[in-house]
Amino acid sequence: MIIISIGNELLYGKTVNTNASFIAEQLFNIGIEVEEVITIGDNKEDIEKALNQAFETSNWVITTGGLGPTKDDITKKVIADYFDCSLVMDQPTLERITEMYRRRGTQITEVNRRQAKIPEKGIALRNDHGTAPGIWIEEGEKVAVILPGVPFEMKAIMIEEVIPLIEKKRNKNQVVIHKEIVTAGIGESALSDLIESWELALPGHITLAYLPTPGKLMLRLTGRGNKAEKELLDQELEHQLDQLIQLVPQYIISTKNESIVEVISKKLIKKGQKLAVAESCTGGFLAHQITLLPGASQFFEGGIVSYSNTIKREILNVREINLKKHGAVSEFVVIDMAMNTMNLFDVDYAIAISGIAGPTGGTSEKPVGTAWIAVASPTKTVTQQVNYGTQGGREVIIQRVAGAALYLLYQQLQ
Amino acid sequence: MIIISIGNELLYGKTVNTNASFIAEQLFNIGIEVEEVITIGDNKEDIEKALNQAFETSNWVITTGGLGPTKDDITKKVIADYFDCSLVMDQPTLERITEMYRRRGTQITEVNRRQAKIPEKGIALRNDHGTAPGIWIEEGEKVAVILPGVPFEMKAIMIEEVIPLIEKKRNKNQVVIHKEIVTAGIGESALSDLIESWELALPGHITLAYLPTPGKLMLRLTGRGNKAEKELLDQELEHQLDQLIQLVPQYIISTKNESIVEVISKKLIKKGQKLAVAESCTGGFLAHQITLLPGASQFFEGGIVSYSNTIKREILNVREINLKKHGAVSEFVVIDMAMNTMNLFDVDYAIAISGIAGPTGGTSEKPVGTAWIAVASPTKTVTQQVNYGTQGGREVIIQRVAGAALYLLYQQLQ
Repeated sequence: MIIISIGNELLYGKTVNTNASFIAEQLFNIGIEVEEVITIGDNKEDIEKALNQAFETSNWVITTGGLGPTKDDITKKVIADYFDCSLVMDQPTLERITEMYRRRGTQITEVNRRQAKIPEKGIALRNDHGTAPGIWIEEGEKVAVILPGVPFEMKAIMIEEVIPLIEKKRNKNQVVIHKEIVTAGIGESALSDLIESWELALPGHITLAYLPTPGKLMLRLTGRGNKAEKELLDQELEHQLDQLIQLVPQYIISTKNESIVEVISKKLIKKGQKLAVAESCTGGFLAHQITLLPGASQFFEGGIVSYSNTIKREILNVREINLKKHGAVSEFVVIDMAMNTMNLFDVDYAIAISGIAGPTGGTSEKPVGTAWIAVASPTKTVTQQVNYGTQGGREVIIQRVAGAALYLLYQQLQ
Repeated sequence: MIIISIGNELLYGKTVNTNASFIAEQLFNIGIEVEEVITIGDNKEDIEKALNQAFETSNWVITTGGLGPTKDDITKKVIADYFDCSLVMDQPTLERITEMYRRRGTQITEVNRRQAKIPEKGIALRNDHGTAPGIWIEEGEKVAVILPGVPFEMKAIMIEEVIPLIEKKRNKNQVVIHKEIVTAGIGESALSDLIESWELALPGHITLAYLPTPGKLMLRLTGRGNKAEKELLDQELEHQLDQLIQLVPQYIISTKNESIVEVISKKLIKKGQKLAVAESCTGGFLAHQITLLPGASQFFEGGIVSYSNTIKREILNVREINLKKHGAVSEFVVIDMAMNTMNLFDVDYAIAISGIAGPTGGTSEKPVGTAWIAVASPTKTVTQQVNYGTQGGREVIIQRVAGAALYLLYQQLQ
C-alpha cells in the first residue's frame, strides 16, 4: 500500500502530516503494510507523477487531500484521467450536499455541486462531516482510494467505509495476528537493552515493533502465517509475550492498547477512589493528560497549578520554612504539596510535582530537568527525584516529568 | 529539494513524521521549496530507490533516520554506494564519540566506533547531542545531506550546520522575502472568505500561505524577485500586508511569528500584571498552553482545575444556587469562578472556563462542544458562550475552547 498525501501546506513545514500516520495505523491494525508515503503539493504534474510511481510499486494507493472546492484541487481529475474515464455527477452525493446546505439555511452553489462529481468508474464513499465524498475506484488489480484532507472527515470515511471494503477484497488465506503490551517507567533504548536477547531469538515470522507515542510506549508483536494455522500462531505469540513479560514485569502496565492514565483510571474507579494533582513545573500538563480521557470526572476531582511560591504557600499551605530552607524544588515542598492537596480536594491520592522545566532557572545543584515528585495515598507518601537533562527542551521535560509522576502513582496502586 | 524520511516506525502509523515538517519549515524560511517528502522503511532496496527517484527530480536531497548503531541502519552505506565511494573513519568524530563515552564513564564499543565512519567524499556535520554525525556530500550539482532521525539531534545539526552550508552554496541573485501575521479569534475558512478578493488580486510573484498550528493561525506572504529589486519588493509586500490588516484588524494579533500566549504575556509583563485561570472542561490545557512559554512565571500565578462541582463550590466558592439553578456550564458559574479566582490568586486578570468536552454529557440545550468563558479584569468581567460542535472530538474541542478564552483575554488587554 502506498499513501499519497497531497497539499502545499504539508511542504511548508507548518502542517504535520498526521493523516498519513492515521491511515498507516488503521492499515497496520488489519495487517496491511504501508511501503511508502509520498507527500507532494497541490499540482497536476506532481500528482500524476506520484500516482504513476505508486502504482509501479503497489496495486493499492490511498490519497488524501486535494478534494476541496477551491481552484487548487485537482486530484479527482488526475485520478479520472489515470483510470481513463470522465467525472460524472453522483446523484446520492449531490442530494446529500444539497440537504447539508439546506439545513444550514443556504442554497448549494455551482462550486459545491462540482464536489458531487466523481470518476465514472468509481463509487462515492459517504462523508457525513463535509461536502467532498471519498472515492473508491478499481480496475483489474489496481485500487485507488481518494479521501479528503480534512482530518476528521478523512478519519470517519477511513474507518466506516474504507477499512471494511479493504477487508472484503483482500487475500483471505493469510492471517496476521498482533499482540500488544504497553510499558511505562522506562525509556525505549533502556528497554531495548533489557530485552535484546529475547528479541534476537524471535523466529522469522514474528516481528517486534516499538510504537512510542507521547506518554505511551507500546510494543507490538506481529505474527504472520496461513489461516489454517491461526490457532497455532496465536499460541506461539502468547508464549513469546509471556517470555517478554517475565523479563521486565515491572515496566509492563497493560496488555491492551491503553495509556497509563486509562490503567490508573480503571483501578481508581473500581475502588471508588479519587485523585487530585498539584503542579508547578508541569503547569497543568498532568491534569490535561488525565482529563483528555473521556469520563475522567469519575475519578479526577481536579488540581492546582501552583506556579508561584505565593500560591504554594497560600493555597496549598506549603510551609514557609520548607520553601526557604530547601527551595521550591525539594522533597519537603512536594510532600507538603501532596499532603495538602489530598486534604484540600478530599481525595484518596494526590500527586505533587515541582521542578525546573527550563530553559532558565537551573543551578549546579538543581540543573534544568530536575524535578521532585510526591504521591500521597491513604497509607503513605512516596517521593522520587528525577532528572531528564535538557535534551528535547522544555516541552519534552514537562512530558517526561508528568509521565514519571503517573508511573509513581501506578506503582502505589499495585 | 526532496526530503527522504527513513524509518519503519513512520510506516506503522504510531510515529508522526515531525522531522520532515521541521526541515521543510527551516528550508521555507530561507526561501527553499520542498517539492516532495518520501517516507520509506529501513531497508536497502527502498532507500536506494528513493534516492534515485529523488535525484531525478531535484539536485538537493536531505535524508533523516537510519543512522543509529543497530542492525537496521544502512542509510550511510547506500549513500556511499550512490556517490561511488567507501566508508572511512572520521577521526574528529571518533574522538568526539570516545570523549562522550568517557564522560559517561564507559568505554566506546566497536558498534559505536562504526558510527564515526562516513562516506569518503563527504564531510561530517557535528552532532553535539548524539553519536551519529550528520553528513554533507556533494558531487557536481548533486548535494545529499544525511541527518540522524532523533528529532533533537537532527534539529540542532539542521540549524547549526546545514542551513549555513546551504546558504553558502545557493544562487545569490534571487531574493525571497516573507512577511507574516498571526491571527486569532477566527477559523481558517471564515478568514479565507473575508480576505478572498484581496488574495485573488495579489500579483503573481507574491503568494499567500495559511500556516495553521495548534493554537495559532499564521498567514505568510512570500515575495520573490531579483536581488537588485529587493527594496522595491519589500515595499510591495508591506503595502499588501497593510491592505490585509485593514480588512480584518480585529483578528490580527501580531506581525511577528508569535503565539497569542506570547502576545498576552508581553502586555501583562509590561504592565506588571498577573493572570490566573480556573478550568473545568479544558482540564489544565489552558494552564499548560500558558506555561509552555518559557518565563511564564513572570505573569502567571497559577490555576485551579475544578473538575468536580464539589471543587467549584469548596475551593472556588461558586455559589450553590448558581450551580443548581443554571448548571455548571453557565454564565453565572463562570462569573463566580473568574471573580473568585481573581481574589484567591490575588491577580489582575482571571480566566474561567466551564463546558462540555464530550463525547458524553451533552444535552439538547447544551450539546457537546458548548462552553462558557469569563474573563475578570480590574474594571469588569466579560463572558462569552462558544459552541464548536463535536467535529474533531474531545481534544479539538478542548483546544478550541482554550483558544477562544485566550482571545477573549486578548481583547480585554487591548
